Amino acid sequence: MTEFIPPGTRFIDLPSPFPMKRGGVLHGARIAYETWGTLSPARDNVILIVTGLSPDAHAAANADNPEPGWWEAMLGPGKPIDTNRWHVVCVNSLGSCKGSSGPASIDPATGTPWRLRFPELSVEDVADAAAHVVRALGIERLACVIGNSMGGMTALALLARHPGIARSHINISGAARALPFSIAIRSLQREAIRLDPDWNNGDYDDLRYPESGMRMARKLGVITYRSALEWDGRFGRVRLDSDRRDDEDPFGLEFEVESYLEGHARRFVRRFDPNCYLYLSRSMDWFDIGESCHGSTDEGLAAIRVEKALAIGVHTDILFPPQQQQQIADGLRQGGADATFLPLESPQGHDAFLVDIARFGPAVGDFLREL
Amino acid sequence: MTEFIPPGTRFIDLPSPFPMKRGGVLHGARIAYETWGTLSPARDNVILIVTGLSPDAHAAANADNPEPGWWEAMLGPGKPIDTNRWHVVCVNSLGSCKGSSGPASIDPATGTPWRLRFPELSVEDVADAAAHVVRALGIERLACVIGNSMGGMTALALLARHPGIARSHINISGAARALPFSIAIRSLQREAIRLDPDWNNGDYDDLRYPESGMRMARKLGVITYRSALEWDGRFGRVRLDSDRRDDEDPFGLEFEVESYLEGHARRFVRRFDPNCYLYLSRSMDWFDIGESCHGSTDEGLAAIRVEKALAIGVHTDILFPPQQQQQIADGLRQGGADATFLPLESPQGHDAFLVDIARFGPAVGDFLREL
Repeated sequence: MTEFIPPGTRFIDLPSPFPMKRGGVLHGARIAYETWGTLSPARDNVILIVTGLSPDAHAAANADNPEPGWWEAMLGPGKPIDTNRWHVVCVNSLGSCKGSSGPASIDPATGTPWRLRFPELSVEDVADAAAHVVRALGIERLACVIGNSMGGMTALALLARHPGIARSHINISGAARALPFSIAIRSLQREAIRLDPDWNNGDYDDLRYPESGMRMARKLGVITYRSALEWDGRFGRVRLDSDRRDDEDPFGLEFEVESYLEGHARRFVRRFDPNCYLYLSRSMDWFDIGESCHGSTDEGLAAIRVEKALAIGVHTDILFPPQQQQQIADGLRQGGADATFLPLESPQGHDAFLVDIARFGPAVGDFLREL
Repeated sequence: MTEFIPPGTRFIDLPSPFPMKRGGVLHGARIAYETWGTLSPARDNVILIVTGLSPDAHAAANADNPEPGWWEAMLGPGKPIDTNRWHVVCVNSLGSCKGSSGPASIDPATGTPWRLRFPELSVEDVADAAAHVVRALGIERLACVIGNSMGGMTALALLARHPGIARSHINISGAARALPFSIAIRSLQREAIRLDPDWNNGDYDDLRYPESGMRMARKLGVITYRSALEWDGRFGRVRLDSDRRDDEDPFGLEFEVESYLEGHARRFVRRFDPNCYLYLSRSMDWFDIGESCHGSTDEGLAAIRVEKALAIGVHTDILFPPQQQQQIADGLRQGGADATFLPLESPQGHDAFLVDIARFGPAVGDFLREL
């Protein structure tokens, strides 16, 4: 039951009580965030970044923490999100374990971790918490909100529930509603964790920990975050050298691609809290922007007011396929936005925005430069 | 530890010993098969069907078993594979649990099931066993060998290792080598079974049975056998009625798509032997037709001699994507075949050949009619 908080993380307390969309309230909750660049006197140069399921608020190196962040190539002086011009804020999602309150955090009422007593989390709660951070920092209006993956859902909820909070929006590999294929994948990931006897209904600790369930969940995640196309070029059918194989195990690792998955999983399983994973994963399944106006997904998008928007999708993304970003651009345009859908030919699938900076950098940079 | 043998199944003994490609031999092994239609006096009207991972030899109803088979709409009098003209033979794969010898069968040497003492199984062994059935039935030359999915691999191995065994070939959603994405999926399915404590290194029984591992493996299979496109139209975001939900379980089934997966898994887990699943799954990872000529995949295909071939692929297939069937057609053409690649717009993904008879029926029927 551990939180994983990068050094230099800042915190803002949420209002207490903080009401949750599906019922229940949080007392004494907080949101972790980091910033880059300088706030202009008019406070009109702020970009908010809301993240995918697992990242922390440390998107890039800054004065408080010089370690490279998860979007290091995208964010900094002279980079596509140019911190010479923009004051950038990145928040860690409510419900996560990277500093913001979530199932792995101590419930002040009991002095013990929330675990499954944490109220049901929805994407809208994550958005409301991010909106509170924006207000608490004294920012009236964001120049832009950028959301990647799950963050693309969070950003849409933020815009729908907090009209006027942002002039513009970049939605990267996001979605206005969860598709059944993605629900199926996430449901299976959660099942892998829940089937692990060491999950123990959420009551595990570092000694008794659902490691194999988390490993399965992460491997399935990595499989769906990348693409068959990329892997064929990258791994082909290359075998592991004999010194990296266990010849005693007839079903042990044999191909490079299996070892790659194993390495990814091993790095992740002890660095993300299983209950937080379950909560954040489920929140995505529940998301449909149509709920914001008690209508269809398209109606929910058309009810959003934003001046300018860019939705970027990748043709090899099987988890948030590009027709979902097309839908976002079309829907926001119905609502009056100057909205563009930009399909990119990245081979890296859903995770392309993290690695294919050659394509994503100019796309994001050009949009922001023209603001 | 059970075999699941349809009534009316016939058997042919394999030569004893039967040598396996990766080492070891089988003694007293047998192959299950069924037939339809009448063998012509010249014995020149025979079509062999080799199957995907899980089907038995009961592809359609026949005199020995009037129950509908797994390809009922495709096979019968007046159907695309017209049994008024063709004598059709379908074999159950070596290594399976549907009548052919495999890890769930009794090893005559010990009187107990083979389990993990069954020799390592390769697609080439499955092909050699099928070739023996053809010879044992007194058939010199097949008019056509049809292989679906894994059967597409088996058919290529059969053609490569038994030159002249077939005049023509239909490869449906098959592959000339395993891709890393597919290897990753299958590796994860096997890991789910192996992680189940009740798998017990293959030493389970009906009481202590790796049910949750098999359920995970099957759900992941079904997810990759179908397509996001089909599921969006079919399930959307429809929720289960409250009487089909367990409100006590905060992470229980909620969406129709989850219930669909659960139903599929429940029907499968006790009807396919887990060890057989592991063996057949691993054999696909190992397959590369290039090994047949100690060269590249394309060279392996070009070394095959067949007069006419058709490779059918589906654009929504993520497990055996259509570029793999394109590769098969191109490769066989290099070897001198009159080979065609036929891409179909089925929304149902890898499993389309089982359900989209409207598209697959004419494709297969036209090819066979012109023979």
